[in-house]
Amino acid sequence: MNNTPLILITNDDGINATGLSKLYKEMEETGEVSIVAPSVECSGVGHGITILDPLRINKIYNNSTFYGYAVNGTPADCVKTAVFSLLEKKPDIVISGINLGPNTGINMFYSGTVSGAAEGAILGIPSFAISLATFKDPDYTYAAKFAREFTEKILKNEIPQGVFFNLNIPSCPESQIKGIKVTSQGRAVYKEKYDKRLDPFGRNYYWLTGSKIRQKNDLTMDEGAVQAGYVSITPLQTDLTNYAFIKELKEWDI
Amino acid sequence: MNNTPLILITNDDGINATGLSKLYKEMEETGEVSIVAPSVECSGVGHGITILDPLRINKIYNNSTFYGYAVNGTPADCVKTAVFSLLEKKPDIVISGINLGPNTGINMFYSGTVSGAAEGAILGIPSFAISLATFKDPDYTYAAKFAREFTEKILKNEIPQGVFFNLNIPSCPESQIKGIKVTSQGRAVYKEKYDKRLDPFGRNYYWLTGSKIRQKNDLTMDEGAVQAGYVSITPLQTDLTNYAFIKELKEWDI
Repeated sequence: MNNTPLILITNDDGINATGLSKLYKEMEETGEVSIVAPSVECSGVGHGITILDPLRINKIYNNSTFYGYAVNGTPADCVKTAVFSLLEKKPDIVISGINLGPNTGINMFYSGTVSGAAEGAILGIPSFAISLATFKDPDYTYAAKFAREFTEKILKNEIPQGVFFNLNIPSCPESQIKGIKVTSQGRAVYKEKYDKRLDPFGRNYYWLTGSKIRQKNDLTMDEGAVQAGYVSITPLQTDLTNYAFIKELKEWDI
Repeated sequence: MNNTPLILITNDDGINATGLSKLYKEMEETGEVSIVAPSVECSGVGHGITILDPLRINKIYNNSTFYGYAVNGTPADCVKTAVFSLLEKKPDIVISGINLGPNTGINMFYSGTVSGAAEGAILGIPSFAISLATFKDPDYTYAAKFAREFTEKILKNEIPQGVFFNLNIPSCPESQIKGIKVTSQGRAVYKEKYDKRLDPFGRNYYWLTGSKIRQKNDLTMDEGAVQAGYVSITPLQTDLTNYAFIKELKEWDI
């Protein structure tokens, strides 16, 4: 790597999201920044990729200046198209965010933001997702600054293949941040249900709704840490194997 | 659980897929079977869920007999709607498949089939995904039989919260199956690229294509086992934390 790292930015709130723009401005202090992001918001897409349909890619300009590429797909599509088609060289780091709203606990599975970073890790690139733990009156200032500081740490360290990071940042001024916690994926579960409604033509449709059920979720876990005012950093991995159960399964006499 | 388990079946090839129908017929020997599956094929959707759009759910009949529910969403949507809206009680097991084509290695992240089982595990239900390791001339007979046998094993054992299973079955007669291997997620990687094409109006579109690069992938890993003619069973988990790296990260002086 030369002294100017190539930084790929994506998200799942779409290319017009404020969190992306704040991240972009901050990261320009550190390196060359390329944006490849979904054309529209695609929260909840998980690690989907588009294989049954073609992808469209458009250049987006802000005041006649090239801003980034908009892809009509998922964050994982964005990282793949960036690496395989759009960028001249492999990025030195992939950052996905800054997401509006936390990504903690089991949301690892549903979050497009986390999947953007996971795809970077799959492609062998140091990667992290970053989310602001609020849905209201977001203040991205400290989150953007922390993204830059964390990027500098990542670029100086060796990351094992398949390991990536999930960051959740409290939405408050830096002076109110209590510190940094390295955490595990939290255990909060959701009480979910579907609203069954009638459309204007009298036909049913269903919409997912739910609320969080608090479980043990202390400062060693993502959500506990961020809710208490700490920056939460969770190392994640692309290997889903439960190695402990391999031994038990062998005793099942299948 | 009473003596007749409630078995929920989903897939990502869509409600009209042959693999689903073969699984359904076989599982009727073991319990009461409910199908809730995507309206159309949605390979590659990963663990996406539909939250920005409403879901439509239609009853599907075969020769005037109710066959199952078709949901215009992902396998994870199907499991959620089944559990929260469509079924009268929580299923005793979730089976996702039988997929046409293997789901091994890093495809855990992209596979809708695997995500159907993961969603079952998230909801606290014993779950497995099952895939036939061929794209051509599929013979589902042994895979369906094995699904039934494995279901009976699962219902007799205790599965830890968040653990689920990914099965890959060779496409051959039972007499040619070499045995059963408990495996880890394989390490095969893909050489990917995008075909850049022109549509009939002269505009660009991109389509993902790629081929597998063989890496170390012996009989202890999913793909190595199934390619050698063994049934591969991989225990997976919903906790993505890399616990080993927590200690290292704490030494980064962030």
